[in-house]
Amino acid sequence: MSTGLNVAIAGATGAVGGELIRLLEEREFPVRQLKLLASAKSVGKFLEFKRERVRVELLSENSFEGVDIALFSAGAGTSRQFANRAVACGAIVVDNSSAFRMENEVPLVIPEINAEDIATQRGIIANPNCTTIVALMALYPLHREFGARRVVASSYQAVSGAGARAINELSLQAKAHLQGEKYEPEIFPYPIAFNVLPQVDIFLETGYTKEEVKFVNESRKIMHHPTLRASITCVRVPVFRAHSVAVHADFERPVSVANARDVLAKFPGLEVFDNVNLKQYPMPLNCAGRNNCQVGRIRLDSAFDNGLAFWVCGDQLLKGAALNALQIAENLVR
Amino acid sequence: MSTGLNVAIAGATGAVGGELIRLLEEREFPVRQLKLLASAKSVGKFLEFKRERVRVELLSENSFEGVDIALFSAGAGTSRQFANRAVACGAIVVDNSSAFRMENEVPLVIPEINAEDIATQRGIIANPNCTTIVALMALYPLHREFGARRVVASSYQAVSGAGARAINELSLQAKAHLQGEKYEPEIFPYPIAFNVLPQVDIFLETGYTKEEVKFVNESRKIMHHPTLRASITCVRVPVFRAHSVAVHADFERPVSVANARDVLAKFPGLEVFDNVNLKQYPMPLNCAGRNNCQVGRIRLDSAFDNGLAFWVCGDQLLKGAALNALQIAENLVR
Repeated sequence: MSTGLNVAIAGATGAVGGELIRLLEEREFPVRQLKLLASAKSVGKFLEFKRERVRVELLSENSFEGVDIALFSAGAGTSRQFANRAVACGAIVVDNSSAFRMENEVPLVIPEINAEDIATQRGIIANPNCTTIVALMALYPLHREFGARRVVASSYQAVSGAGARAINELSLQAKAHLQGEKYEPEIFPYPIAFNVLPQVDIFLETGYTKEEVKFVNESRKIMHHPTLRASITCVRVPVFRAHSVAVHADFERPVSVANARDVLAKFPGLEVFDNVNLKQYPMPLNCAGRNNCQVGRIRLDSAFDNGLAFWVCGDQLLKGAALNALQIAENLVR
Repeated sequence: MSTGLNVAIAGATGAVGGELIRLLEEREFPVRQLKLLASAKSVGKFLEFKRERVRVELLSENSFEGVDIALFSAGAGTSRQFANRAVACGAIVVDNSSAFRMENEVPLVIPEINAEDIATQRGIIANPNCTTIVALMALYPLHREFGARRVVASSYQAVSGAGARAINELSLQAKAHLQGEKYEPEIFPYPIAFNVLPQVDIFLETGYTKEEVKFVNESRKIMHHPTLRASITCVRVPVFRAHSVAVHADFERPVSVANARDVLAKFPGLEVFDNVNLKQYPMPLNCAGRNNCQVGRIRLDSAFDNGLAFWVCGDQLLKGAALNALQIAENLVR
């Protein structure tokens, strides 16, 4: 190769795809050629990259010839259909979907936590679930210091986690509601405007949603902590962008708020925003569009002997998806 | 007395006051005379009760002569100022505020749980915090069956918990936001439209909010369970009415989802709405205006050995405030 890499984005016209294109430029990723791939209905659209218009092409078996890095962000079905083909063509795939995350030979990576796992890749590297990423950005440094034993969490997930059309649905539905009109839900099972839905993703036989099980399984894999006890209630809230997670955790070793704050403040990609006297705490409205996650409301957890409670927010399209994927790609380049 | 009781409502023009007036009529409470009391700025307004217009009077030291039952719903400061005066005049006070809840000689009552405590009253009976009521309506029957050891919860609290002006603020702020305009917060410390705030009530030195500490202390007192370990993160969400709480609890005795459902289904004032195959679960939008609380998402908690996770919703102006207060008054009448 002369200079740079041939990069393909599968799902280029989606919410995460758009952020990937922007971040490739902003972070000066060494792109030689950028291929924007999508399904038939988006073919022929043009998207801007480095002040040039790039035509969206059809995602197909033949899309990956000569591609070095393929960033997949088009859902698990699409990843299952095309990721192995991309690998066969010689590309390394960074996959945003849940398709391969729990497969043994696929590393599941948050670079600040387990970048070393990237070296074990055999063609596919998985990007974790957005809620898992946001929660672990604060839980992991605490785990490293105090040894996490048990985690109980609840999420407050923004609609943009469900894609660009979900953002539109919240906006139009809220407008209709305020005018006393009806707006039937299409993306979500029930109205999301001025409501909260205790369902993200489909239900499994245990009564948990897939999203909730992802949090437990992915946390164990990423932190290399197979015995972690964890549970979560995942809830969609009428917020456009940035997820929040209330985390209550019990640790092996004695904890203190001062130690916790020290450890969190040193962790890359995380900001401690925690001064309740000044009413400073993370909020989705302030974390939208921000690369770093924010943690606050750090306090001893009154339900556990060595417990800490905290509140973490992060933009799930950035650190929860596009940024994390690109950080993985940057690690590959190094 | 010939027929009925003389009833006073202190704080008659507020959101809870309005529900109290409506419920007194709907539930055919034996009212001989209704006194509507409020601060100076509401004096002279008329409110309707049983198709008659009742004039709002100034709440003062002299308001309680001849009053049998005084329902207070005007904040802790007002209760501290006037409740003892009402008692001195011979009234029994049912107080919605936090002023007396943790005082030893004041029973704190959810009638479905500890109606028998009403008999210990010496003039004041306290109505619990709204989030506590909603959570305990599902936690208590499970505690009675399995013995609650540890509870970790997160709340999703509607703006109406902060009063009638908060409802208006969410509405106008959401409208402004959708039109790309600004609307400065007045009731809440930050914008609540399309945001969530991990703060309800003021902060204490421990890093918990007063609302969060209320949940722990009031749960112990109401359930007569002083050794319960509990913690909660209380969060305001852009919902107009009805609180939701995600509860994760660990019990002394082995639990099963089937047993839990049985026990919950038999509890008065609570509906089990829990069929995930049909996407049936409680939501604030459906619980607004409903007397009963709803519980769903009942599942084994993967973080505990004898754990259950569930999701409970309730209208905090009704069961969380006015209805519970009136139920206490109904118990007094019997």
